Amino acid sequence: MPAFIDHVRIRFAHVDPAGIVFYARYFEIINSVLEDWFRDGLEHDFGLLNEKDRVGIPLLHIEADFIRPSFLNDIVEFRLSVEKIGNSSFTLNYEGRLGGEVRLKMKAVHAFVELDQKKSVPIPDAVRERMTEFLVPPA
Amino acid sequence: MPAFIDHVRIRFAHVDPAGIVFYARYFEIINSVLEDWFRDGLEHDFGLLNEKDRVGIPLLHIEADFIRPSFLNDIVEFRLSVEKIGNSSFTLNYEGRLGGEVRLKMKAVHAFVELDQKKSVPIPDAVRERMTEFLVPPA
Amino acid sequence: MPAFIDHVRIRFAHVDPAGIVFYARYFEIINSVLEDWFRDGLEHDFGLLNEKDRVGIPLLHIEADFIRPSFLNDIVEFRLSVEKIGNSSFTLNYEGRLGGEVRLKMKAVHAFVELDQKKSVPIPDAVRERMTEFLVPPA
Amino acid sequence: MPAFIDHVRIRFAHVDPAGIVFYARYFEIINSVLEDWFRDGLEHDFGLLNEKDRVGIPLLHIEADFIRPSFLNDIVEFRLSVEKIGNSSFTLNYEGRLGGEVRLKMKAVHAFVELDQKKSVPIPDAVRERMTEFLVPPA
Repeated sequence: MPAFIDHVRIRFAHVDPAGIVFYARYFEIINSVLEDWFRDGLEHDFGLLNEKDRVGIPLLHIEADFIRPSFLNDIVEFRLSVEKIGNSSFTLNYEGRLGGEVRLKMKAVHAFVELDQKKSVPIPDAVRERMTEFLVPPA
Repeated sequence: MPAFIDHVRIRFAHVDPAGIVFYARYFEIINSVLEDWFRDGLEHDFGLLNEKDRVGIPLLHIEADFIRPSFLNDIVEFRLSVEKIGNSSFTLNYEGRLGGEVRLKMKAVHAFVELDQKKSVPIPDAVRERMTEFLVPPA
Repeated sequence: MPAFIDHVRIRFAHVDPAGIVFYARYFEIINSVLEDWFRDGLEHDFGLLNEKDRVGIPLLHIEADFIRPSFLNDIVEFRLSVEKIGNSSFTLNYEGRLGGEVRLKMKAVHAFVELDQKKSVPIPDAVRERMTEFLVPPA
Repeated sequence: MPAFIDHVRIRFAHVDPAGIVFYARYFEIINSVLEDWFRDGLEHDFGLLNEKDRVGIPLLHIEADFIRPSFLNDIVEFRLSVEKIGNSSFTLNYEGRLGGEVRLKMKAVHAFVELDQKKSVPIPDAVRERMTEFLVPPA
């Protein structure tokens, strides 16, 4: 199964008074996985994308299931795969695991948007081609 | 339409390099709306709930649609209503607006959980009764 | 004693696994006090400053003493006063209290900087004049 | 010069509307360096310390100089050294660099505190011994 894999250590800053990851922190973590995927998986620097090309990839929709809690110092394995590649939008699936245990699942829809006009633009061909390497259509 | 209303000012700390609210920050904001609702809407202190009764309300599921961006110093009106009240879980809808414009929508499912045993427990009757005041079943 | 006063409620997102405010969150809180002071105390919008005039006020130096912990739902009173007004830089003192108890103290040095050239610029006269209303030289 | 070295990539979540690291995020980053030092430098797990021994190391004092900005995707090298080891408190110096350029410096004073009684306790001997390996008295 093609997927981009990233390991993230749970930090003190992620943990809430109940001793588990505060869910809002997972969205920061997920964004760091996305950044790593753009840079290392797609070989398109997330930063350059923003500034030079005046293109961003805002999040349109996200859904998340929090299945098991994570704790300080856990090293959670995140698997990112692509569910769908549209004209300007794309759908990602994330799964966070530790050992055999699934901790969380997320599905995120982003679009390529030209930052000055705030209009959606087609996914650049070079990016689209690399994205297909991580494509896992829903079963 | 019954709803709990909270106004939140967009802060420098919420805004990303593109000049709009970073979506991960919306989940922190939403949690503050939830805290205000428990305290002022349900008159059950979110903090006391956690420590004295050893009960928490972890998030099981959330979905969010980001419809329009928000900017520094915007005062966004959040409306919280209850879609469903189960035995131990409950489903909330959030809508963030400014003027007539809908900025975001979220749906969140929480459960009452006993913190030491990590088992779900029934929603306390007094809380359940107050929750019904904010009940808006889906159309 | 002239001071700008702001009340901030401690949120779930501010609290660490030990049940007290994580110190990194205090710097987000302090920045919101600074934003409120610019808007309501100096009547210069922090956001406009950044975008229209291409001027920012980066932090050069900060020091903080954490004297007593703060807890979820505490409403901490922050007092901001100006210790010194230089040509392009200014020094602020913050004190966070609850009841008679001092929770924390901070001292922060900012400078007015032109964002494109990244060069310091003089404090605008209108801002300087308003700042003097909050001036409390060290004893 | 003995020092614990950690490399931290600047993330989208760290960056402010001016395109540089928001200073409040540096304190989260510094805390992750501290966690890594405890685990890998002192071989005392920061998490275990908190929960099993009921001991924490709250921050008493911090000061920071922000010398040059950092940008998205910068990999900043943080050097942690120990300036002073007291009975229950210890003083750390941090320096963040990229290439030959110093980005920031921080000095932090922590104390070992028993979490239930909230009283300071002596630094455990095994920790103290390992700390001396990173001792760099001020010049």
